[in-house]
Amino acid sequence: MKYFEDLAIGDIDEIGAFTFSAENIKRFARDYDPQRFHVDEAAAEASLYGGLIASGWQVAAIWMKLMVAHQETEVARARMLGKPVVKLGPSPGFRNMVWAKPVRPGDTLRYSVEITAKKESASRPEWGIVSMQSSALNQHGEQAFKFDGMVFWERRG
Amino acid sequence: MKYFEDLAIGDIDEIGAFTFSAENIKRFARDYDPQRFHVDEAAAEASLYGGLIASGWQVAAIWMKLMVAHQETEVARARMLGKPVVKLGPSPGFRNMVWAKPVRPGDTLRYSVEITAKKESASRPEWGIVSMQSSALNQHGEQAFKFDGMVFWERRG
Repeated sequence: MKYFEDLAIGDIDEIGAFTFSAENIKRFARDYDPQRFHVDEAAAEASLYGGLIASGWQVAAIWMKLMVAHQETEVARARMLGKPVVKLGPSPGFRNMVWAKPVRPGDTLRYSVEITAKKESASRPEWGIVSMQSSALNQHGEQAFKFDGMVFWERRG
Repeated sequence: MKYFEDLAIGDIDEIGAFTFSAENIKRFARDYDPQRFHVDEAAAEASLYGGLIASGWQVAAIWMKLMVAHQETEVARARMLGKPVVKLGPSPGFRNMVWAKPVRPGDTLRYSVEITAKKESASRPEWGIVSMQSSALNQHGEQAFKFDGMVFWERRG
């Protein structure tokens, strides 16, 4: 795991992949986004999307799911190797969230995070502030989703 | 239901309220954001949040859930009154999503949407493009969540 000081602009971390299915698309949508083109195949075929598509909020929530699992793997690996566990702090929010391509049953998205900027926190010397662009590519290499985020990141010592 | 031409900058629409509970917070988080302060009361008390808090993605997904229900109510009312049903198109994305206050079990958020800008679509004359700021206030009147969004909105005729 890297401390704030070790991060370089342009570093890219693959955080994982997820395959969407009619079942998981409809399950998320029934609870959180029951628009007809997310919950009903026949209605979706008649809609402007021409078939079932995933809620954009599911595409975003899966990013979080993969990020948590990725972070847990990194922590476990650091512990196994006897290396320091680097802490990430809370995120104040996100910007510029874009759903560029519909996500359909059978699509696999590969999510990654790129470091785009870093600065020291003026008020909290134990933290740096790291800007990242997260994105997801589908199996055709098309960018389906992206957003810009910031996170507090532990500094060395 | 209003056509694009009838919308005024500053119009505010209350879209609904939702009460978060330990149960619904943990249920969302187990599937999508299993960080310890979202899924485990004891670990959450020991964290910097001092107790269980909702995933920011749940707070966002509930916005969508309420928006869909609100829209369905508006459509039903228009049909009952024999008034035209105005269509909303897809949203290209969101900007500036901010989680300003932790959301805890027992908190009720009231979500609303304010029209902040509107313009005609150059390429698609049947649509206008409407900018909105969505936000959620908790029971103490504090803003817990906000973001800026855009949506395609049907024009008259």
